[in-house]
Amino acid sequence: METFNQNIFPKGEKAPSEYFSGGTAWVKILKPNEDELHCQIGNVIFEPKCRNNWHTHDGGQILIVTSGTGFYQEKGKPAQVLKEGDVVNILPNVIHWHGAGPESEFTHIAINPNTQNGVVNWLEPVTDEEYNNL
Amino acid sequence: METFNQNIFPKGEKAPSEYFSGGTAWVKILKPNEDELHCQIGNVIFEPKCRNNWHTHDGGQILIVTSGTGFYQEKGKPAQVLKEGDVVNILPNVIHWHGAGPESEFTHIAINPNTQNGVVNWLEPVTDEEYNNL
Repeated sequence: METFNQNIFPKGEKAPSEYFSGGTAWVKILKPNEDELHCQIGNVIFEPKCRNNWHTHDGGQILIVTSGTGFYQEKGKPAQVLKEGDVVNILPNVIHWHGAGPESEFTHIAINPNTQNGVVNWLEPVTDEEYNNL
Repeated sequence: METFNQNIFPKGEKAPSEYFSGGTAWVKILKPNEDELHCQIGNVIFEPKCRNNWHTHDGGQILIVTSGTGFYQEKGKPAQVLKEGDVVNILPNVIHWHGAGPESEFTHIAINPNTQNGVVNWLEPVTDEEYNNL
């Protein structure tokens, strides 16, 4: 197993509250979407209970979980519990959300490839009823 | 600053010795290049002095340094010292190498987007003379 230093990225900026609910998330862009790599990478920290809205990515997304416990759910499927070291592969146009567990902060690196096709399409929030019934 | 657990990925497999020199590197594939995300992600651990050959990526590459001290060098430019939290953006077809410092293990996540264009083109090793004169 590999050793990570415990403090490697700044916390970043507050995520926009119209696309996150249940608490605050923090986003630090590690690689902006600005060149022919057509790729954007960010580190996202979710406070306990915080999750993003249902959404899709035109070019897909990969999540690498680096700390805490959280959830990933695709529309119409059961939620998956995520913990550090887990990798989630999200195909283009799959409706999904991710976020923290009710009692744990949760952090992942989010990699968006193929940004020439688009980055994210935000949909409705994950309701308390949906979240609390997981 | 964000907290990482200290042990999140398995060490993986030995990297092929024809493309690495000065020591052993270990590669754990986190996301295989197998779907329409056109993206491959691996965690790479370099023992001290170990570096990869000069090489290029047809689709570019992003490195996220997670532990240790290492080097990144593009052909014809001075080497850069890398430490945890650093992100390196490598444009397509830029001749470069990366690896550990002489006395430090070095680990990065390597993200290869745009793999429909190709992944890697290996060139000649970084000689001891090149490495020792950094």
